[in-house]
Amino acid sequence: MFDDKNPSKTSISELGEFGLIDHLTRDIKLTHESTLKGIGDDAAVLAQDEKKVKVITTDLLVEGVHFDLSYMPLKHLGYKAVMVNLSDVYAMNAEATHITVSLAVSNRFPVEALEELYAGIKTAAALYQVDVIGGDTTSSTSGMVISITALGEVENDKVVYRNGAKANDLLVVTGDLGAAYLGLQVLEREKQVFEANPNAQPELDQYTYLVERQLKPEARKDIPKLLQDLEVIPTSMIDISDGLSSEIIHLCKQSKVGCNLYEEKIPLDPQVIATCEEFQLDSTTIALSGGEDYELLFTIGNEDFPKIKANPNFTVIGHMTLEKEGMHLITRANTKIPLIARGWNSLKIE
Amino acid sequence: MFDDKNPSKTSISELGEFGLIDHLTRDIKLTHESTLKGIGDDAAVLAQDEKKVKVITTDLLVEGVHFDLSYMPLKHLGYKAVMVNLSDVYAMNAEATHITVSLAVSNRFPVEALEELYAGIKTAAALYQVDVIGGDTTSSTSGMVISITALGEVENDKVVYRNGAKANDLLVVTGDLGAAYLGLQVLEREKQVFEANPNAQPELDQYTYLVERQLKPEARKDIPKLLQDLEVIPTSMIDISDGLSSEIIHLCKQSKVGCNLYEEKIPLDPQVIATCEEFQLDSTTIALSGGEDYELLFTIGNEDFPKIKANPNFTVIGHMTLEKEGMHLITRANTKIPLIARGWNSLKIE
Repeated sequence: MFDDKNPSKTSISELGEFGLIDHLTRDIKLTHESTLKGIGDDAAVLAQDEKKVKVITTDLLVEGVHFDLSYMPLKHLGYKAVMVNLSDVYAMNAEATHITVSLAVSNRFPVEALEELYAGIKTAAALYQVDVIGGDTTSSTSGMVISITALGEVENDKVVYRNGAKANDLLVVTGDLGAAYLGLQVLEREKQVFEANPNAQPELDQYTYLVERQLKPEARKDIPKLLQDLEVIPTSMIDISDGLSSEIIHLCKQSKVGCNLYEEKIPLDPQVIATCEEFQLDSTTIALSGGEDYELLFTIGNEDFPKIKANPNFTVIGHMTLEKEGMHLITRANTKIPLIARGWNSLKIE
Repeated sequence: MFDDKNPSKTSISELGEFGLIDHLTRDIKLTHESTLKGIGDDAAVLAQDEKKVKVITTDLLVEGVHFDLSYMPLKHLGYKAVMVNLSDVYAMNAEATHITVSLAVSNRFPVEALEELYAGIKTAAALYQVDVIGGDTTSSTSGMVISITALGEVENDKVVYRNGAKANDLLVVTGDLGAAYLGLQVLEREKQVFEANPNAQPELDQYTYLVERQLKPEARKDIPKLLQDLEVIPTSMIDISDGLSSEIIHLCKQSKVGCNLYEEKIPLDPQVIATCEEFQLDSTTIALSGGEDYELLFTIGNEDFPKIKANPNFTVIGHMTLEKEGMHLITRANTKIPLIARGWNSLKIE
């Protein structure tokens, strides 16, 4: 009875996730003085008092898109759903303080399944010292959807945005990259083996690090604290959820700079290297595009290099350049190729 | 490969929405001093500075459970999704300031459909003076899910919880009740007529108020302001989303009081009365259990009665009693019957 009279149809996959958000929100006006940052960073930033700002971020996880319950235990899913959000808080150089959790679940889940999910959420909240302060639980017509909002706070002069990088700043990453994506490939392969032969036992021993990075990622709560101890305030920062190249491009575009990323510097775990050989995958591609690492990527002024250089948590992987010089990967063979985003895009699915 | 080894299966519908949330969250520990109120009210409350507290609330709307796109235009859906959340902020006696919006949408929605949805969200945000500061957009395997989180603030000494009502306090409601539920019945009937005969034109003229209350509810932004002007701080407050009886029971249980609700005092619009007659429904039952009114229900001390009695926004519908006296409806025939919750329960669906 209410016909759609609009003949124009543009598929959402044509715009991609970031294009779509940008398209839908570009004309949003911010009217409150307290809104220091709206859409477009890892978290929004609100003025709180004379000393601190509040940061707020939200993420939606959809069954069949972001997780597959055939190899993701519910307790791990709950834990990971919290990590995904806390990671965005830490990417603002903030301390996470509170979360709200909303769930939509179909009747195929018994109460015991939700207890498992909540056990993971509560474990994460306790370990990361965030209070679970609210939420909503409702039914869904199919599958499970988890929506978490995280709040955090940081001193006014320490909040770090994506847009502060300058030419010549050093590009630094925490931890190592690519393992979570490879963990997913291992689990997918085991799932296929299991479907072909239900008596098969999963062989995961040599992939423990990869599988753990996929099923139980840890957000870098330690990094804002460590940076404070080292007296380093990054000039820009972002968390690595979609893949290194995609995140570097975000920093460059928002900071209006270019960058040179050195392939040989990208930190890889030995299991990543060995498993890439086994799966005949290029480890650099995996690190650039794999996603779900939940490490932090940031830039610092050259003067801060001595403060971080001896720290095993940090690897300098490149430096920023003038915008006109573009964004490049410098390969091991010393060729310079343009950096392109091939990160994981949930809107491509279906 | 990861078998569910837990043989125990309890259906989530056995617990109901409130029972389920309570069950899953009962052992959550709050560790931050800034957490003044966690789960269990319309919104959580966080300390902000010496003068104000922040309130935060979140709601998830699922296609096929909370809305039916065959008669809910997307623009109205966006508007209503914002209202549902702002209503919870106003129920804390707070001013709404910011929202985040997360969407999961299947590929059956073109970009133009999401533009419509966002047009409703932006219209609501502009009219209610809240900044849209963040969100997430992702694909879903089926249907649409909208998750909104709303933030607000209020002076420390003016925040109102559900648990402050005292025996002899007056029970007051804003606006009138039952219209949104009847609007839904009218739309459902028209949908069936349309399905039987696609050339039929909807006949909605005599139900305009009801349909508008269903499709375009307005949260009571005016009430916290009005209460402040009248110098009234309610002793307890809640918004009416699930139906009057369910909300009264929340106030009574959390405040540890009983109540007498007078049937003859329940405010009903003439269209509600006429349409109840046409549909052969009992208007009191509709007002008690219909839900989605998004009016505010609150209690005040007797000394504040003179301040509100002449105001057309408010109707005194009963008074609180000692807890041991129980919760009752006093009918027009002056019989006293126990009040039971029969509000709308999303977990009953499927």
